[in-house]
Amino acid sequence: MSISKDIRVVGLDADDTLWHSEVYFERTQRRFDELVGRYVGADVDVHAALTAVERRNLGRYGYGIKGFTLSMIECAIEVTGGAIGVEELGQVLAAGRSMLDHPVDLIDGVDDAITALADAGYRLVIVTKGDLHHQEMKVMASGLADRVERVEIVSEKDVATYRRVIASMGVAPEQFAMVGNSVKSDVLPVIEAGGHAVHIPYHITWEAEHADHDGTVPTLTTIRDLPTWLAAQA
Amino acid sequence: MSISKDIRVVGLDADDTLWHSEVYFERTQRRFDELVGRYVGADVDVHAALTAVERRNLGRYGYGIKGFTLSMIECAIEVTGGAIGVEELGQVLAAGRSMLDHPVDLIDGVDDAITALADAGYRLVIVTKGDLHHQEMKVMASGLADRVERVEIVSEKDVATYRRVIASMGVAPEQFAMVGNSVKSDVLPVIEAGGHAVHIPYHITWEAEHADHDGTVPTLTTIRDLPTWLAAQA
Repeated sequence: MSISKDIRVVGLDADDTLWHSEVYFERTQRRFDELVGRYVGADVDVHAALTAVERRNLGRYGYGIKGFTLSMIECAIEVTGGAIGVEELGQVLAAGRSMLDHPVDLIDGVDDAITALADAGYRLVIVTKGDLHHQEMKVMASGLADRVERVEIVSEKDVATYRRVIASMGVAPEQFAMVGNSVKSDVLPVIEAGGHAVHIPYHITWEAEHADHDGTVPTLTTIRDLPTWLAAQA
Repeated sequence: MSISKDIRVVGLDADDTLWHSEVYFERTQRRFDELVGRYVGADVDVHAALTAVERRNLGRYGYGIKGFTLSMIECAIEVTGGAIGVEELGQVLAAGRSMLDHPVDLIDGVDDAITALADAGYRLVIVTKGDLHHQEMKVMASGLADRVERVEIVSEKDVATYRRVIASMGVAPEQFAMVGNSVKSDVLPVIEAGGHAVHIPYHITWEAEHADHDGTVPTLTTIRDLPTWLAAQA
């Protein structure tokens, strides 16, 4: 495999691109729906209530498991009118701790693809949104840190953020390609910044990450195809 | 005022160096002690119990108000054996939200000192530990962002972190000076990395930030004296 003439730096999204994440949120949310559902009438949509509390708190808590846990506790008290038990709130708290303590579970093909990219001479930077402390712990636990030049943990993935990241790597936008599972966060703002981007869908997408697009976004089925796609952009 | 011949970049700690922070933690903790104290015997030290839960969770939650709030809820359930009310847990949650929503309150003299440093040609970088999202919100709300070249939000302030920050600013360690309220985080590792550092004590220090030292650490009473101190290091 030869390196692309144009692309020098590959930006990698982390959650649900390199390792599984949303699946743990969904699992916890299902347990939360069950737990809280016992205290409310059949007409109450606990899932929708939690989504509303999360959205209300997003500006305050940002992304990540700690804010998600705080929103679950707030929602449990609110939606049950205080009828939820302290015991159950303790279980919600424990579910959040257990998510944070969960080992990093790489997505199939990631280790091979990252090795192929590093061997081909691409400089790799992880660009991930979320909680600084937890993301740093995950990068360290992933076993990928030695092949990655830099980890950029950002609070928003917008055009300005990508311009800053690209500049900090010392390349032109057209020498940068981003890969990720969110069209909204990983693809559209990078293309707007003048870079390359490719979408690798994950089987579930967090509601806040849905984006409307015209279907012309470059897409791969698996990260195993990334080295070939990059070489073809030359 | 003339710029120091040696020092080109000034690193600024944020919480309790540029703006008040610990005072809000202490206020919230006093309210927590009162609230939870009603449910436990006079022999139970709620304050000590919370400190223990915080320490136990530090590796999992890192620094910041979200982790502090989660630890308060966990401690309240644990220390009362589940006797605390859901109503009270809702109050703890609200106290955490209120801390996050609190306006940034600059420490006396900061605005003048930052203006003097910027006017004298020093390049300024905020180096702060803690929660990415909340620290970015505070920097933006502080009114200082336009005079600061970069904000580095780090998960630990150790020698390796400072070496990385100094290198990323493109200067030698002896051209970098750090100022902050923690001898352990802002002074000792910077000196070990070959830089300059000066301690400006805040009237309260978080227990985890206490450090033993031999008393020879450079110290200023107020950040108003920082420009003169920097010039004297030439």
